[in-house]
Amino acid sequence: MPQRTEIRLAGAGGQGLILAGVILAEAAGLHEGKFVAQTQSYGPEARGGASKAEVVISDAAIDYPKAIKPDVLLCLSQQACETYLFDLQPEGVLIVDSSLVRHLPTSRALGLPFTQIARKEVGREMMANIVALGALAVLTGVVSPDSLEKALLARAPKGTEELNQKALAAGVQAARTLLRQKHPRAGAPADTGEGG
Amino acid sequence: MPQRTEIRLAGAGGQGLILAGVILAEAAGLHEGKFVAQTQSYGPEARGGASKAEVVISDAAIDYPKAIKPDVLLCLSQQACETYLFDLQPEGVLIVDSSLVRHLPTSRALGLPFTQIARKEVGREMMANIVALGALAVLTGVVSPDSLEKALLARAPKGTEELNQKALAAGVQAARTLLRQKHPRAGAPADTGEGG
Repeated sequence: MPQRTEIRLAGAGGQGLILAGVILAEAAGLHEGKFVAQTQSYGPEARGGASKAEVVISDAAIDYPKAIKPDVLLCLSQQACETYLFDLQPEGVLIVDSSLVRHLPTSRALGLPFTQIARKEVGREMMANIVALGALAVLTGVVSPDSLEKALLARAPKGTEELNQKALAAGVQAARTLLRQKHPRAGAPADTGEGG
Repeated sequence: MPQRTEIRLAGAGGQGLILAGVILAEAAGLHEGKFVAQTQSYGPEARGGASKAEVVISDAAIDYPKAIKPDVLLCLSQQACETYLFDLQPEGVLIVDSSLVRHLPTSRALGLPFTQIARKEVGREMMANIVALGALAVLTGVVSPDSLEKALLARAPKGTEELNQKALAAGVQAARTLLRQKHPRAGAPADTGEGG
């Protein structure tokens, strides 16, 4: 069976989720040799400023390019959490912007304050989408941060490359710190290990 | 039967076809109340710098979001023409950038020099994608130039709004002129009509 991974990025219009979907798709498709389909839908269901982008990554050609039951769900708004959580695979990964999603719908959620990190580390709240992408790569392993950076630099408007790199690195860093807190041994440097 | 229209935008990487697909989808989905799905695929088939974005517009919810047999094909490269023409509906509309596609694969093709227009009218070759969108709206009627302009302005990076509007208007204008040449009476002002 080919390995098929479905990722849904959900939030409000203007949060840059479509661009995030395109970058994630190009990272996996152009830089990691995977088959990738990237979609977004509009129409009556998109009213109220909701926005959603989906990426399907596979080892084999993709028949149906939309997410059926996502393995990864990124939510940048409370409403997105409430709308899409029911769809997530039972063992799926839920990642939320904890600056915006106040009521975590499950204790399994991985929360990081992407918007706050973007403001503090990059000086631009609107780069929360890129911070989130960096964190998603680390928390899910669907793509490497290096491939993501290549895809990001190819899409970044001229003059914004450095800010984008900073945003991505901040997301990667925040996710690694979160993983260390959850699994204290996993990321600990050797010299702080047992017997230290 | 719901009306389903499939549009494929094809060319080389870097020509802005994905952004064009997103803008076209948002014009129809957010500003004309249609159901719309927008996709792009990457992977082994995307090698060689080819790029393709698809938009499906429908009166009803969309089951399968990719183009099966496009009604409209926009080609911004010779290779795109050669790769995708076979797929076009028999009565489909083929639009090509005649500055880049030297060998028209069929006499039915509607050719306009989008890249040349972008350079001459806007001073930016890279806005050929927006010029092409404006022309596509006029030549196919899948979306109105007004909706396209709203969607475009919502996606244009700050400071580029005016250039983008100019590019869109240049495409609309060029297409109207082309239609008048093909159907001299259609666009003629009343005072040059019969008996004038």
